[in-house]
Amino acid sequence: MALDKQAETAKRQFKVVGTRPNRPDGIDKVTGRARFGADAVAPGMLTGRVLRSPHAHARIVKIDASRAAALSGVKAVVTRADFPEPPAHVADVLDNCMAGAKALYDGHAVAAVAAVSPAVARRALKLIEVEYEVLAHVTDVDEAMQPGAPVLHEGRTDETVPEGFSGNVISRCEFGHGDIEAGLAKADRVVERSFRTAATHQGYIEPHACLAQMGPDGQADLWCCTQGHYMVRNTCAAILGMEVGQLRVTASEIGGGFGGKTTVFLEPVALMLSKKAGRPVKMVMSREEVLRASGPTASTSIDVRIGMTKDGRITAGDAVLRYQGGAYPGSPVGMGSMSAFAPYDLENVRTVGFDVVSNRPKQAAYRAPGAPMAAFAVESVIDELAKSLGLDPLDVRIRNAAVEGTKSSYGPTYPAIGAKATFEAAKAHPHWSAPLGENQGRGVACGFWFNFGGDTCVTLNVNLDGTVSVSEGNPDIGGSRASMSMMAAEELGIPYEQVRTIIADTGSLGQNEVTDGSRVTFAVGLATIEAARQAIRVMCARAAKIWGIDEDAVVWEDGAAKPAGPNAGQFPPMSLAEIAAVASNTGGPIAGHCEVNAEGAGVSFATHIVDTEVDPETGAVKILRYTVIQDAGKAVHPDYVEGQFQGGAVQGIGWALNEEYIYGEDGRLQNPGFLDYRVPVASDLPMIDTVILEIPNPGHPYGVRGVGETSIVPPLAAVANAVSAAAGVRLTDLPMSPPKVQAAIQAARG
Amino acid sequence: MALDKQAETAKRQFKVVGTRPNRPDGIDKVTGRARFGADAVAPGMLTGRVLRSPHAHARIVKIDASRAAALSGVKAVVTRADFPEPPAHVADVLDNCMAGAKALYDGHAVAAVAAVSPAVARRALKLIEVEYEVLAHVTDVDEAMQPGAPVLHEGRTDETVPEGFSGNVISRCEFGHGDIEAGLAKADRVVERSFRTAATHQGYIEPHACLAQMGPDGQADLWCCTQGHYMVRNTCAAILGMEVGQLRVTASEIGGGFGGKTTVFLEPVALMLSKKAGRPVKMVMSREEVLRASGPTASTSIDVRIGMTKDGRITAGDAVLRYQGGAYPGSPVGMGSMSAFAPYDLENVRTVGFDVVSNRPKQAAYRAPGAPMAAFAVESVIDELAKSLGLDPLDVRIRNAAVEGTKSSYGPTYPAIGAKATFEAAKAHPHWSAPLGENQGRGVACGFWFNFGGDTCVTLNVNLDGTVSVSEGNPDIGGSRASMSMMAAEELGIPYEQVRTIIADTGSLGQNEVTDGSRVTFAVGLATIEAARQAIRVMCARAAKIWGIDEDAVVWEDGAAKPAGPNAGQFPPMSLAEIAAVASNTGGPIAGHCEVNAEGAGVSFATHIVDTEVDPETGAVKILRYTVIQDAGKAVHPDYVEGQFQGGAVQGIGWALNEEYIYGEDGRLQNPGFLDYRVPVASDLPMIDTVILEIPNPGHPYGVRGVGETSIVPPLAAVANAVSAAAGVRLTDLPMSPPKVQAAIQAARG
Repeated sequence: MALDKQAETAKRQFKVVGTRPNRPDGIDKVTGRARFGADAVAPGMLTGRVLRSPHAHARIVKIDASRAAALSGVKAVVTRADFPEPPAHVADVLDNCMAGAKALYDGHAVAAVAAVSPAVARRALKLIEVEYEVLAHVTDVDEAMQPGAPVLHEGRTDETVPEGFSGNVISRCEFGHGDIEAGLAKADRVVERSFRTAATHQGYIEPHACLAQMGPDGQADLWCCTQGHYMVRNTCAAILGMEVGQLRVTASEIGGGFGGKTTVFLEPVALMLSKKAGRPVKMVMSREEVLRASGPTASTSIDVRIGMTKDGRITAGDAVLRYQGGAYPGSPVGMGSMSAFAPYDLENVRTVGFDVVSNRPKQAAYRAPGAPMAAFAVESVIDELAKSLGLDPLDVRIRNAAVEGTKSSYGPTYPAIGAKATFEAAKAHPHWSAPLGENQGRGVACGFWFNFGGDTCVTLNVNLDGTVSVSEGNPDIGGSRASMSMMAAEELGIPYEQVRTIIADTGSLGQNEVTDGSRVTFAVGLATIEAARQAIRVMCARAAKIWGIDEDAVVWEDGAAKPAGPNAGQFPPMSLAEIAAVASNTGGPIAGHCEVNAEGAGVSFATHIVDTEVDPETGAVKILRYTVIQDAGKAVHPDYVEGQFQGGAVQGIGWALNEEYIYGEDGRLQNPGFLDYRVPVASDLPMIDTVILEIPNPGHPYGVRGVGETSIVPPLAAVANAVSAAAGVRLTDLPMSPPKVQAAIQAARG
Repeated sequence: MALDKQAETAKRQFKVVGTRPNRPDGIDKVTGRARFGADAVAPGMLTGRVLRSPHAHARIVKIDASRAAALSGVKAVVTRADFPEPPAHVADVLDNCMAGAKALYDGHAVAAVAAVSPAVARRALKLIEVEYEVLAHVTDVDEAMQPGAPVLHEGRTDETVPEGFSGNVISRCEFGHGDIEAGLAKADRVVERSFRTAATHQGYIEPHACLAQMGPDGQADLWCCTQGHYMVRNTCAAILGMEVGQLRVTASEIGGGFGGKTTVFLEPVALMLSKKAGRPVKMVMSREEVLRASGPTASTSIDVRIGMTKDGRITAGDAVLRYQGGAYPGSPVGMGSMSAFAPYDLENVRTVGFDVVSNRPKQAAYRAPGAPMAAFAVESVIDELAKSLGLDPLDVRIRNAAVEGTKSSYGPTYPAIGAKATFEAAKAHPHWSAPLGENQGRGVACGFWFNFGGDTCVTLNVNLDGTVSVSEGNPDIGGSRASMSMMAAEELGIPYEQVRTIIADTGSLGQNEVTDGSRVTFAVGLATIEAARQAIRVMCARAAKIWGIDEDAVVWEDGAAKPAGPNAGQFPPMSLAEIAAVASNTGGPIAGHCEVNAEGAGVSFATHIVDTEVDPETGAVKILRYTVIQDAGKAVHPDYVEGQFQGGAVQGIGWALNEEYIYGEDGRLQNPGFLDYRVPVASDLPMIDTVILEIPNPGHPYGVRGVGETSIVPPLAAVANAVSAAAGVRLTDLPMSPPKVQAAIQAARG
């Protein structure tokens, strides 16, 4: 079945898919017409503001909000005491949105107010008296694991964790197969190294924002900037003790998310403020709040051992990964552990991961959560091995590449995959053989991502004039409106311009998983195609009714119903528009629907090549050239695919070179702003070249794979390998900021 | 089939339907949380204002808007020249929204501006120079028909109109059967009378309002107060030359419509202003604009001849109806002609209708469009005949009542109907036999309405926690959110409180007919029930999958799937919530959908009894007591049904006694405000008593009929009959305002 689909896809001639039509949100976004989270308003709206802990770790002894509540213009004050006891699955989420017994990090919300103006709200916050008992804190992952470290939560360590760790180690996971020590014994060379990566933020431009409206009847409406308004609905309903159906959530246009908007921060608080105030409440984070109190990624400490034969065969790969995920359990160490060796076909492989808490904001997903750090460590060691054995790093990767039928390092056996194809394309790319100058170095690295599917609903309505409206439930963070319109147009046989896709609110469409896991083009695309096919079946039935022939004797070709079989040629074809025009007379409106838990998302692989130049005097690193080669499955809209490749590479470059959360001795974030937390800007970067490989995913009718996350996995290692080559010394600690590079060079030069 | 359904309905035991749960929009509306048309905002929004003709009829020689356009803060000026040549089906609609060659009535839009503030917009309107050539005008229907009357449109008269009329007579229609003259010859008494009714306005509290947003990419979004956002979409797209799918329309909460919001006035203008300005534009009518330039009902002139035998048998009914529908063709004279004699089983019946234009705003639908005026005329004559023959007016109606199998006066043969039941219930009601005092009179009259179905889409989504979201596409003007939630809950076997119904925008759900024709509870209800049944089929299949048994071996009872047949009792029932909780693991989200052109809306009948007291000195009329008896089919939520009965009666009382458009000699409206245009207020009225009869509609699974319009049909005649009885003189000219009543009494007393 899978193979048939793949064969069908491979020979299919696409008319719309694969072209590059104008993006439907382009003009909205450049003219300011797009309505982002903070653009929502409602009559009688109040301003909500949050009071945040100045301490990294403190017991909340008492909160006296009486003076704030008495201030003229203050309509509600909310603390944790206002919330009901939450169900277990959202207990940590609520505690992160509004601290309970303890403040667990600098910036942790402890109270909130709703007032008639921002000025009154600010004044009210100053009138809230919080009595803290300041506790010892820990923000470093290795320190947090040590016995004797300050412990955030008592009794949360599960049975997977061995003795000898602090209570901040929540769980341990292990993946792999074979015998590591036996494998290492067969190696001609074994390299063992330790790596560290800093916490980085997704750096989305739009801060978190929402407008909540909740009445005494328990009905509520919420407008917010999110990657998943169904998640917001389900989570907030659970926290507020509401029935899911009573909360209607509409997703605004989104100014970036990258995983950071896959959970809630303000929303339950805004709803509670609105409930207490009896008026709508708008809340918008400042940039400082975003950095102090939303979710960056985990910082990590990773040890890797890899053995290799002289001819480049990896005999064993072993890694221990320690991810601190901030103040609550749930770091992405599991996905880091699963993905670390995923590009390779290894006889002996093992990864062990530790989920650790510390006094930092709870991490949120960040593009391929957990994978870039793991790839950084593993791909650095492979690079070092190849170079020390005098081998071409791409030849080594080709030699060890996972292929169809490989038992992956995390368990499943791969179907058709593109790992080897990306290595070979990289090797053949002119970039790989271009000359380099002094103080310049080239790096290559590979990255893997799972890609996901999940619950998905799509409705496709055929309008009276033959245009088509597609309704999907996933905020468009990477071009899904264009992609869905294209796939619907492809399937229906009409021009792209005749389809408009919108993001429905939670009241209008069934449950959809969050826009994450690179799931949308795959899963929503699959559902869109199925909805289009259902609409085609309806249209064929309508044509059959008009013609007075059997439904089965009608086929759909080139956007029209045609009589087939014994009736072939008996009637002229009826186009979609012709059938739509008379729909009312043939039974009513025409639609197609699909509700599915989409399975079969294909994994994807990327190989990145990067040239850097290192200034040995200052340690500054310049990116000279960058090429992304990635398997996209079928690229529905290549512009967006290239954009994803480029965006992922750029975020990875920032992570590699500059971005980091800097905590002081006091446990407070020292750089909560874009001046001190430095993301790459256009002038820091060359044009990022892209090569799209199209190895069809057998799980999707058009062969689509997710593409959005894989591209952030290789850059950390690719840049590190390039910097190491240029500097003549192995860099193992991210970010490779100028002082660190300079120090490494000086240390190496003695 | 129909009979089976009816039998099923009659014996069905309802659990939710027929109860009176809290209305879901109640708190929203009393707390100000509800968002009406004018509550919409968008970033960078401009204020749109309309310049209106001060002349009833004038050629527009020239419009110079250059000074307005040059005013600082003015971002766009629009005249008819900005619009493309419209398709024929919306040409009049556009001309009404923005005058072309001529201004056709006082208040006709001739230009519009969008500016940064209301003040600038107002100033800009004053700078627009319009050169008019004023033409002779006509506003009275009989005068407009005369040869030699000023003609609004040349060449619009169609072939149905005989010679001898002015060009303002657009078309003629005729209904009936038998031989009128032969029938009249058999009568013991023939009464022939002429009647006149004034134009009245629906009197909705919320003025027309919209917010339009249109970009250079042709994509547009519109938020507006309307009874039908799909109609708005389709109409505006045709006028603007857009593809339907590129325009997404969201209906706001609606502060009354009653038919008056079934067309567009501001919306195409706002879209065009937004297109030119490149910014969102909000437009809100003032009350004066609503009265001068939205759509009141037609004013009419009607002649009726009826013959009756001594024992009360009607031998023939004949009527000529002349409806002026304002400046464009399309008065509801057809529906008036069809409904005039509809309650009766007549051997000889004929109605002839004339559709006439005049220099007034184009009429819009008003609750049972066309029927109240026709019923006023016919029911007045029947009353006069009964009294002059010494017969009880209700006995006469019972004698002549249409019943199942009657060939109606407009063609179709009736299925089960409630005409006779309402007469009999009225006769048995204590009100009918209560004593009356001096100067008091009692009137009775009957009314008929068709009720409609039409294109309808509903989506029903089962949420993860077992609550249910219903998505319908008809603005809720009379409780449809409550009714749909009730019917969904009934069908699914869950409590009403677990269902929330929302009104989806045009991008999220397929085509829906306007909320009119009393269609929604019937048609959307039917679709909701079908969607619920589809969701039940899905849930049974999921349960079957979990149990590993055949889908057909599962039944749905009391909100749960149960194994049946050979599997009965093998597994405990799975409730909706239990199936919903694991939906993701059994295939994905659970939904039901229905797209249908709903047929089988059952006609309905009402009989009203009213007692009035007339002050012979002043002519003032007081309503003493009022009883509405109406066939509702199955009353889903009796509170709303009673509210519809009461509201219709009150609007009819206003129409009968006070409301009228008063035009001066200059053709200008003299009473464009609620001080001079007098609608009944609470202190004018007694409690309106209601009796709900439930004769199931065989065309609906629960037997539901439309109820919203029928109740405005009898009051004009019922009140006129009561006033005539109290005053001792027949009143034939509405409104029966004090001067007219006084004059009639004085004339009668010589």
